Amino acid sequence: MKKTVRPEIPRKTIYRLSVYLRCLHRLRENGLSTVRSEALANAAGVKPTQLRKDLTYFGQFGTRGLGYDVEQLAGMISDLLGTNRLQPVVLVGVGNLGTALLSYRGFEQEGFEIVAAFDAEPDRDRDKPLEVPIYAMDRIARVVRDKGVRMAIIAVPATAAQTVANALVEAGIGGILNFSPAMLTVPDTVTVNSVNLAIELENLSYFIQQ
Amino acid sequence: MKKTVRPEIPRKTIYRLSVYLRCLHRLRENGLSTVRSEALANAAGVKPTQLRKDLTYFGQFGTRGLGYDVEQLAGMISDLLGTNRLQPVVLVGVGNLGTALLSYRGFEQEGFEIVAAFDAEPDRDRDKPLEVPIYAMDRIARVVRDKGVRMAIIAVPATAAQTVANALVEAGIGGILNFSPAMLTVPDTVTVNSVNLAIELENLSYFIQQ
Repeated sequence: MKKTVRPEIPRKTIYRLSVYLRCLHRLRENGLSTVRSEALANAAGVKPTQLRKDLTYFGQFGTRGLGYDVEQLAGMISDLLGTNRLQPVVLVGVGNLGTALLSYRGFEQEGFEIVAAFDAEPDRDRDKPLEVPIYAMDRIARVVRDKGVRMAIIAVPATAAQTVANALVEAGIGGILNFSPAMLTVPDTVTVNSVNLAIELENLSYFIQQ
Repeated sequence: MKKTVRPEIPRKTIYRLSVYLRCLHRLRENGLSTVRSEALANAAGVKPTQLRKDLTYFGQFGTRGLGYDVEQLAGMISDLLGTNRLQPVVLVGVGNLGTALLSYRGFEQEGFEIVAAFDAEPDRDRDKPLEVPIYAMDRIARVVRDKGVRMAIIAVPATAAQTVANALVEAGIGGILNFSPAMLTVPDTVTVNSVNLAIELENLSYFIQQ
């Protein structure tokens, strides 16, 4: 409906919308059909003013005193995030971390399906049988295009990450979740979210010394 | 030396210091002994003014025109982060993700050693032999205290995460890296960094629609 102009929403707001969506799913599972903004804010761990501000991107809705319709709000957030249908994702780098990610059930629950994986050694023996096909790196462009994939997960070593990112961007990938410690250079049209496990630990390491 | 009063450094600055440290290590591996702030900022992907501001926490140093001593700056950042010696870490939840984290080499490279793991089913058959001992959950307090551990990784399902967090805090853990989708409630003295893989993908999902 309001799809003609897509609002520019800051990345942090998008993260919070994901959190609200999880809270709404939990409320729905518990049989609740409406929720007051204070209760939803509290469940999400944000201030009510923050919640109300974040939801202004959807225009005016919710009834003062009655709160939000759980089903409606969840639907609007899913629509915005693009998770109202199963999204195909490819994974590059089937080492320890990549193998774990392939068998991680949390993705599918949230609407993401890893449809193919790529590795420098696609035929190498792996500890467990994988349900996803593993291809050689030079098949990235073809598989991504054939399956209409827009999102990729990079779980290769730092030294290989930029080359892989280039191949993914060339193939038409628009969003990369980067688990390698490398800083990736991509065109402005591509979004990279990086998860650097060692840096997260290092950050904690500072705070436990306080 | 300047250890009497520990500066209050924002979390984002701490993340950037981790990035600078990685850049400095790379420079050292390439045989460089000094680096100008512009070059270091460029390697880290930040503005030179940002870098200089972040480094003011260390007081006045660096020589105008000559730049920073790579070894000295790396040492100062490591000291501050507390990664100049191997830090013991425990992991709770040895499922798919937990198993991958146990065999992830990136941690040890950065100064973290997973010394013990805990699981609701410590004796369950796992796909591969693990080098780290796996204990039952009721051993958390004892092992954490015996080994002087201050940091923990949580990789259990959302439903178990708060109970695990409580046990860790009670045992004296000060920093938690949380991979479960649960929002954890901990005392102010404990730092939690959360990595929610599904939320990272959801965030990308929004941006690829642009």
